[in-house]
Amino acid sequence: MAQKAIQDYYHDEIAHCYGCGRLNREGMHIKSYWEGEEGVCHYRPDPRYTGGFPGYVYGGLIASLMDCHSAAIASAAKLHREGLSPDERPLSRFVSASLKVDFLKPTPIDTVLELRGRVKETGRRKVIVSIELSADGEIRARGEAVLVQLPEK
Amino acid sequence: MAQKAIQDYYHDEIAHCYGCGRLNREGMHIKSYWEGEEGVCHYRPDPRYTGGFPGYVYGGLIASLMDCHSAAIASAAKLHREGLSPDERPLSRFVSASLKVDFLKPTPIDTVLELRGRVKETGRRKVIVSIELSADGEIRARGEAVLVQLPEK
Repeated sequence: MAQKAIQDYYHDEIAHCYGCGRLNREGMHIKSYWEGEEGVCHYRPDPRYTGGFPGYVYGGLIASLMDCHSAAIASAAKLHREGLSPDERPLSRFVSASLKVDFLKPTPIDTVLELRGRVKETGRRKVIVSIELSADGEIRARGEAVLVQLPEK
Repeated sequence: MAQKAIQDYYHDEIAHCYGCGRLNREGMHIKSYWEGEEGVCHYRPDPRYTGGFPGYVYGGLIASLMDCHSAAIASAAKLHREGLSPDERPLSRFVSASLKVDFLKPTPIDTVLELRGRVKETGRRKVIVSIELSADGEIRARGEAVLVQLPEK
């Protein structure tokens, strides 16, 4: 059986995000998986997400990937630190307080993008996640997000 | 006659961006206008761009608005400094080298968002733009982008 993505464990009420909500029919359906100490996301952009220059993605797509992927990493890492899996306890939900993206090179659109991220710092409710985005074997962008855990309902 | 948006002056070859390209049929069609010393953008999000929580936009939308709007501001400001309008000389095209967004408060989806930005620093080919995004009279996010001018063809 295929491993479930982190976003597939989000509660239905918060699964509508255009970036990563499984219940958003028109959305991007970003999927993040936990591997060892990292969160990994593979994403093949739809041609509509072109940048100003044909053949490359628009900057907002990269920021969207970084944003949703970092929130998933923050959630999964918290459970992982406690030695639990999302089958054992619902994920805590994190939202971005800030996001910084460095666009290092143009990112091609007609390929699978790979994002690998990990937790850089953990506070009581705050997590800092850093992410690298590669395509065709080269790092194209780096991101750093500060995420804050929402209070449990 | 209505004022033309900055993006409507982009050359056809670079007018395909999902965020702001007038030739991208499925895109967001972000439009920026030059007013005095500022670039202004009004944008009513489509309901599909919801965040994890219904009623608010996803973070990637805010980053996309900041990214495309800052590039437009960099282009228009350069002409403005030279005392020219885009009817007199083609716009130079800028791309983001980095983007930082601070998400201060949730941003409602069912309203018109207003982005106001201005040039904070200018180098030979580099421009730093800072932007505030408001909705319903409150600042919801702040952005800062470093943009680099592309060589003219």
